[in-house]
Amino acid sequence: MQESIPLTAPLTPLLDRINGVTELRRLQVSQLPLLAAELRQFLLYCVGQTGGHLGAGLGVVELTLVLHYLFNTPHDRLIWDVGHQAYPHKIITGRKHAMLTMRQQGGLAPFPKLGESEFDVFGTGHASTSISALLGMSLASGQCQRQHIAVVGDGALTGGMAYEALHHAAHCEADILVIINDNQMSISPSVGGLSSLANNSGRVTDISQWFHSLGFHYEGPIDGHDIAALIQQLNQLAMIKGPRLLHVRTIKGKGYGPAERDAVSYHAIDKINSSNDAKLNHYERTYAQVFGDWSLTKAAHDPRLLVITPAMINGSGLATFSRCYPQRLFDVAIAEQHALTLAAGMACADAKPVVAIYSTFLQRAYDQLIHDVVLQQLDVLIAIDRAGFVGEDGSTHAGAYDLAYLRCIPNLVIMAPGNAVEAEAMLEFGYHYAGPACVRYPRGLAAPSPGAVAAIQLGRSHVMRQGQRIALLNFGALLPIAVEVATQLDATLVNMRFVKPLDHDQVAKLVAQHRLLVTLEDHVVQGGAGSAVAESMQQQGLSCPLLTLGHGDQFEAHAKRTQMLAANSLNQTGIQRQVEAAWQTHMGEALLTMLD
Amino acid sequence: MQESIPLTAPLTPLLDRINGVTELRRLQVSQLPLLAAELRQFLLYCVGQTGGHLGAGLGVVELTLVLHYLFNTPHDRLIWDVGHQAYPHKIITGRKHAMLTMRQQGGLAPFPKLGESEFDVFGTGHASTSISALLGMSLASGQCQRQHIAVVGDGALTGGMAYEALHHAAHCEADILVIINDNQMSISPSVGGLSSLANNSGRVTDISQWFHSLGFHYEGPIDGHDIAALIQQLNQLAMIKGPRLLHVRTIKGKGYGPAERDAVSYHAIDKINSSNDAKLNHYERTYAQVFGDWSLTKAAHDPRLLVITPAMINGSGLATFSRCYPQRLFDVAIAEQHALTLAAGMACADAKPVVAIYSTFLQRAYDQLIHDVVLQQLDVLIAIDRAGFVGEDGSTHAGAYDLAYLRCIPNLVIMAPGNAVEAEAMLEFGYHYAGPACVRYPRGLAAPSPGAVAAIQLGRSHVMRQGQRIALLNFGALLPIAVEVATQLDATLVNMRFVKPLDHDQVAKLVAQHRLLVTLEDHVVQGGAGSAVAESMQQQGLSCPLLTLGHGDQFEAHAKRTQMLAANSLNQTGIQRQVEAAWQTHMGEALLTMLD
Repeated sequence: MQESIPLTAPLTPLLDRINGVTELRRLQVSQLPLLAAELRQFLLYCVGQTGGHLGAGLGVVELTLVLHYLFNTPHDRLIWDVGHQAYPHKIITGRKHAMLTMRQQGGLAPFPKLGESEFDVFGTGHASTSISALLGMSLASGQCQRQHIAVVGDGALTGGMAYEALHHAAHCEADILVIINDNQMSISPSVGGLSSLANNSGRVTDISQWFHSLGFHYEGPIDGHDIAALIQQLNQLAMIKGPRLLHVRTIKGKGYGPAERDAVSYHAIDKINSSNDAKLNHYERTYAQVFGDWSLTKAAHDPRLLVITPAMINGSGLATFSRCYPQRLFDVAIAEQHALTLAAGMACADAKPVVAIYSTFLQRAYDQLIHDVVLQQLDVLIAIDRAGFVGEDGSTHAGAYDLAYLRCIPNLVIMAPGNAVEAEAMLEFGYHYAGPACVRYPRGLAAPSPGAVAAIQLGRSHVMRQGQRIALLNFGALLPIAVEVATQLDATLVNMRFVKPLDHDQVAKLVAQHRLLVTLEDHVVQGGAGSAVAESMQQQGLSCPLLTLGHGDQFEAHAKRTQMLAANSLNQTGIQRQVEAAWQTHMGEALLTMLD
Repeated sequence: MQESIPLTAPLTPLLDRINGVTELRRLQVSQLPLLAAELRQFLLYCVGQTGGHLGAGLGVVELTLVLHYLFNTPHDRLIWDVGHQAYPHKIITGRKHAMLTMRQQGGLAPFPKLGESEFDVFGTGHASTSISALLGMSLASGQCQRQHIAVVGDGALTGGMAYEALHHAAHCEADILVIINDNQMSISPSVGGLSSLANNSGRVTDISQWFHSLGFHYEGPIDGHDIAALIQQLNQLAMIKGPRLLHVRTIKGKGYGPAERDAVSYHAIDKINSSNDAKLNHYERTYAQVFGDWSLTKAAHDPRLLVITPAMINGSGLATFSRCYPQRLFDVAIAEQHALTLAAGMACADAKPVVAIYSTFLQRAYDQLIHDVVLQQLDVLIAIDRAGFVGEDGSTHAGAYDLAYLRCIPNLVIMAPGNAVEAEAMLEFGYHYAGPACVRYPRGLAAPSPGAVAAIQLGRSHVMRQGQRIALLNFGALLPIAVEVATQLDATLVNMRFVKPLDHDQVAKLVAQHRLLVTLEDHVVQGGAGSAVAESMQQQGLSCPLLTLGHGDQFEAHAKRTQMLAANSLNQTGIQRQVEAAWQTHMGEALLTMLD
């Protein structure tokens, strides 16, 4: 058992000889345990250098080796559900030398990705998609002689779409092999009837029965770290037709003591010795922590408050809440659809549910939000985290679309805070608002507030600076940058606060007093907050040059959040450059000259 | 067995005495069969008069009576999943006299609806939501002594969120009772491993095992038309705590011969003797039929084509296709999430999948569309039906948001046809386009094309009429109205065709040549196609008065589609009035005077 992460490249003489599956398949079975040990060391070293997902990969080292050893990948198709366990897969399929670029701009993606390697036959990132994709490939391939294999964590099985796919696969009697990687953890410990059974070895028959009654041939559970057992079972299952399921038990973080003992903390790690800027001082909090702190305070004062999270207790800042109010926190597993309708039901029974969810995962519950919550005007507060650029997790986790997909829904209140204190005030406002309301904020640090925050009023903006010629209309967490830009350009700065209802009066006032309006948001321009301002002007019959700043109309690959902002000209220089160019276009003269 | 639908109000002396649950509960058990018979007659008569959902309601007459007879509704909470089986529930809970207003503007809603009655404790319409809502109510109600009951069809159980909720309910050991109304049909015959088991009475143990292994106390199956059996079982289950499940077998369309023999056709019916305008002549086709015809032709010529539908074979115009190409049509049951990712998998295996889905149900697969299809630029065509106002199904089924929630996604092609021939051309274009593409069209008749249709080119619009002063930019199926308006106002008319990529050059040209631009779409204005035009003008630095016409920012209750259009001033008069008002506002003079 390893107790520390190697800080220098470990000696891996056997792994050094394996550049891909060709060399792997030339090995004797008896050499695989040594290769597994070396791969584990190498993985620990790499993730220590780059940061990233650790525990899941350590748990599937043997399974990864055996799958590529036995099967003719990539002709035989292998999909990793979620994909955060795919680091060993990347190492063994020709990407060993690139592992130190993981999660960095231009480097390896943190999940399997189409185009990165022919061995990544389907891109993943969100949970529970693999069985659907695998079934699609299998059905479209007809009678051709390929194996179709998906590796799915027990947590991903809690997602409804995994069940939909199992159900359909059984109906089709499809030739697929689903391997359940049962580490009894997923991202945080799995919840739900089936998972609790899986933790009780005395009732393995129930798990077997469950899959059997769905129509699957079930084998297991077997020890996922036992190479001989894996080979024997997989060889046997490869001979059978129809929908098959192998239940494999693994230990998340296997081989690294701290991760085995605390799988939740070591699900993903920061890079070792990463610079101190990642450490927070007493006054700095992430938006997630602001939400967590607010919910704690609120819970103490209001027994109606209930919090729902789809398997994101830690990510959403709810670790303390879960210890203080375990009966009032509902971790529904990876079940976003259920999360929203559960909240709707609670609201019908006089509770005040708060759903803590990432922007990218709210996409999973979009219909439930419209059909069950907003259409019925139910009193649900939605705290939308990871809105905007998400950084290293990349395009699969982009929180770039929420304003567009929320703004079209009638009667939904949408707020975007500019700093920590305002975030708290908006959560408080949304909580007491009689109807559905959202507060959307990004990953990372919340700017400290420049003092007290003016009271939140429905659909009212806040003028932060009176300037001339140019008005900057800021929506959300880029506010600190907007402050700098407004000062530099002597522009008026308005913190718009509400994307819906929009402060139409303010828009009219700004048009009357300025020659150029500029909107700023951490979101795609298409259909976003700037688009709402354009609509407002048009509906009020107002005319004024308008520059809408936000993400470009493209998917953003993984990089640092600051790099993403810079690449989209949303850092201070980029914004100023864009404003100056717009001024030049509309006024036919340079803006800088005027400031001089 | 009734063989015809009564055309005059049947004699129902016992039902006449029952205005609500109070009178119902005073009856002897022995009177319930007679009441059931009368209720069935009355239901047949009412649906014959109004049109609407028939088969499901006929199947649950006895179950409805027994539930309200035994339980203390509405204090005991009863939720009907989907809700198209809730007509008997409405009749017996005080709405008998309003039944003839069903589905009409201002009349009873076609589904349970909050606010319509205290007995409708949760609004439904989309499938599979009831267990989540019920669980939320139960968890928020703590130890209070209420029964919590949901009635769920076997079809709705194929939806992943039902499974998510069952899973969570078992984990919580919640005090809920789920009644499976197993008519082995749902909307069309259910598919999937579990449903096929349910059809095989020899393997009832498997169904029992399946629920038992999830953590539910299972009873059944029992005959859902046997009042004594229902009473006995429900009384027994009411005494038990924890998650319970009663499996009830019913016959869809029970008591009405034609519906029992052809449950799919009698799922919902038109009103008897409804006017001939509902009948199509040879040249008139609905958009769904246009899609069905196109897919038939295409399948004959291209073996790569595969079609996926989430339980909407008939509604999507695929009945003939399902007979001609059963191996190439994948009905995945009510599993929209799975449908999109299945298509993604097929596209990875060199097939060309076409997903036929309603706009309102695509909301269920929004994340899968972004994460699995578009982000990976997979070659999937999405035929979006029921886009725009849907008419009598009401706000739960509104197809009013798709342009906004699709337009924000990078690299997605979005088309909206103006008539039948153009719809075919766009399907053809989208099919051959190398990447994800959508064609969105409404419920109902497709206008015949005024002759040949100019070839579809990516992102290119089509000028249909050259006028002066005003340019009308039409997006989609309101084109025939736009033609009338343009003629009346001597306006330029452009059939924009593509919402994304937008024809920016055309926008610039129109701005240069006109004094007012007017956009027209069957969609909410917020973030819609008109909003895209506003963005385009702003990004190109163009200035011109713009009027964006579309749905108002509110939910639309059930009414005829024409009534919805009129209420939103989207019929010819309404559009002209709005254009004239905008002209007056911007030009300070009346438009009519100019035309005179």
